[in-house]
Amino acid sequence: MAPQDPHFASRVRESFGRQKAMALIGAALGMVEPGRVEVALPWRDDLTQQKGFIHGGIIGMIADTACGYAAFSLMPADCSLVTVEYKINILAPARGSLVARGEVIRPGRTLTVTRGEVYSEDGKHIASMQQTLMMLPGTPDTPE
Amino acid sequence: MAPQDPHFASRVRESFGRQKAMALIGAALGMVEPGRVEVALPWRDDLTQQKGFIHGGIIGMIADTACGYAAFSLMPADCSLVTVEYKINILAPARGSLVARGEVIRPGRTLTVTRGEVYSEDGKHIASMQQTLMMLPGTPDTPE
Amino acid sequence: MAPQDPHFASRVRESFGRQKAMALIGAALGMVEPGRVEVALPWRDDLTQQKGFIHGGIIGMIADTACGYAAFSLMPADCSLVTVEYKINILAPARGSLVARGEVIRPGRTLTVTRGEVYSEDGKHIASMQQTLMMLPGTPDTPE
Amino acid sequence: MAPQDPHFASRVRESFGRQKAMALIGAALGMVEPGRVEVALPWRDDLTQQKGFIHGGIIGMIADTACGYAAFSLMPADCSLVTVEYKINILAPARGSLVARGEVIRPGRTLTVTRGEVYSEDGKHIASMQQTLMMLPGTPDTPE
Repeated sequence: MAPQDPHFASRVRESFGRQKAMALIGAALGMVEPGRVEVALPWRDDLTQQKGFIHGGIIGMIADTACGYAAFSLMPADCSLVTVEYKINILAPARGSLVARGEVIRPGRTLTVTRGEVYSEDGKHIASMQQTLMMLPGTPDTPE
Repeated sequence: MAPQDPHFASRVRESFGRQKAMALIGAALGMVEPGRVEVALPWRDDLTQQKGFIHGGIIGMIADTACGYAAFSLMPADCSLVTVEYKINILAPARGSLVARGEVIRPGRTLTVTRGEVYSEDGKHIASMQQTLMMLPGTPDTPE
Repeated sequence: MAPQDPHFASRVRESFGRQKAMALIGAALGMVEPGRVEVALPWRDDLTQQKGFIHGGIIGMIADTACGYAAFSLMPADCSLVTVEYKINILAPARGSLVARGEVIRPGRTLTVTRGEVYSEDGKHIASMQQTLMMLPGTPDTPE
Repeated sequence: MAPQDPHFASRVRESFGRQKAMALIGAALGMVEPGRVEVALPWRDDLTQQKGFIHGGIIGMIADTACGYAAFSLMPADCSLVTVEYKINILAPARGSLVARGEVIRPGRTLTVTRGEVYSEDGKHIASMQQTLMMLPGTPDTPE
């Protein structure tokens, strides 16, 4: 898991900072290592579904983002990444703050495969994701 | 696709109304039919990722919700539903308002399988989902 | 869904004919149309799991193959395809002969997304698949 | 990961022995531990697809089976299990003998979630699976 860009961490942090959807839900970037990224989500009542648990789609959002940046950390500086698909199992209802950990399991030139886990602050395993991403070489990671 | 509860539509609308996460992103319930539900998402700049497209996790949120309520519409009045898992392919980058259409493909006593499609207002096919839900009989669909 | 190769049907049939795994399980190619392919699987006792139903992995095999050739039918003559990933829900236990129907839902230059359905001869819906494939341009679809 | 049935290993081995589809492809059960099961697949030319690699559906079959028995190893003696769904990423083309390793990541009363990895004999990572199973209590794991 060797990063191709020595400035991978700042590149990941700047890209995350442009994700307005992460600001909307109050998510914050945690650890950024080559092929491994964490996203933290403090508890907020407005993230819940009809029974008062964190919405499954919100859980998917932070796992998707952690996994995507885990892949992005290994990419060259002049590319952008798109999520091809992801699959998530919700293992337990979530109340309280969450952390999503994304990890690359197969880095590739075109496609990268990642896995993500979501845990609650009391250590409960909330969700597991498996995700596929595609690199777009020579494409800016910013709005056109 | 016969609903077990004649008041399925109002039950779906009340449940959706308790989803604070849907209010947060500005999503609204559209059509509610037995086994088929739509969720509309007007464009907002704060739903985007780093390149200015709608965040893939937001697309997953509305598809997950549309599919979940498609399943919920067929359920008895005294149950609640949990999402077991979902898988989504992002087919195209999304800008502009979206609509997610969920549909039951196999209703079951315990497990229900659904599919969802997300389209942009100009008719572009944005995403496809396949989802599994589990019914919890005799469980209120409200916070404990 | 316009085929790029006018000889797509014979190209699909020749490729299927090289799949020794299909011969092993007794599967046969049915309809081949642009973006839509069927694979038939006559009942055989040696395809079963411990309870006497068709093995879920066998169901996955024919759905994967039908979906893959649905994608292949739209590709140029000088490429090969690889399955990136697939997800399958087993909807009902299967006894008797099966047919798998694959269909392209989003053809793409690099990635193609398909869906597949498996039915039993009495019309029961057995399984639903969603699959992603990647085209390898200028690569022979034969052993090296 | 405590087994509920002290005779879990022999129960798994007997059930696997009834899977005629495993005999057909020449797969053999390897390690059986609580929540972890291996299935070995010696190379055979008749397991291949059109390019001479092991068919992706065959890879899915052994991963599905290893994961299913990982779950079954933790179940009570008088139940049977059904695969609800699985998702598999094919990470690399496979030639040579394979081993699939299934592992329970979330055991449950009704639903169990597992993961599986497939490796080739030279240590290459071939595939990754995430799977959901449902327990049917008081149901024999044999043909009716």
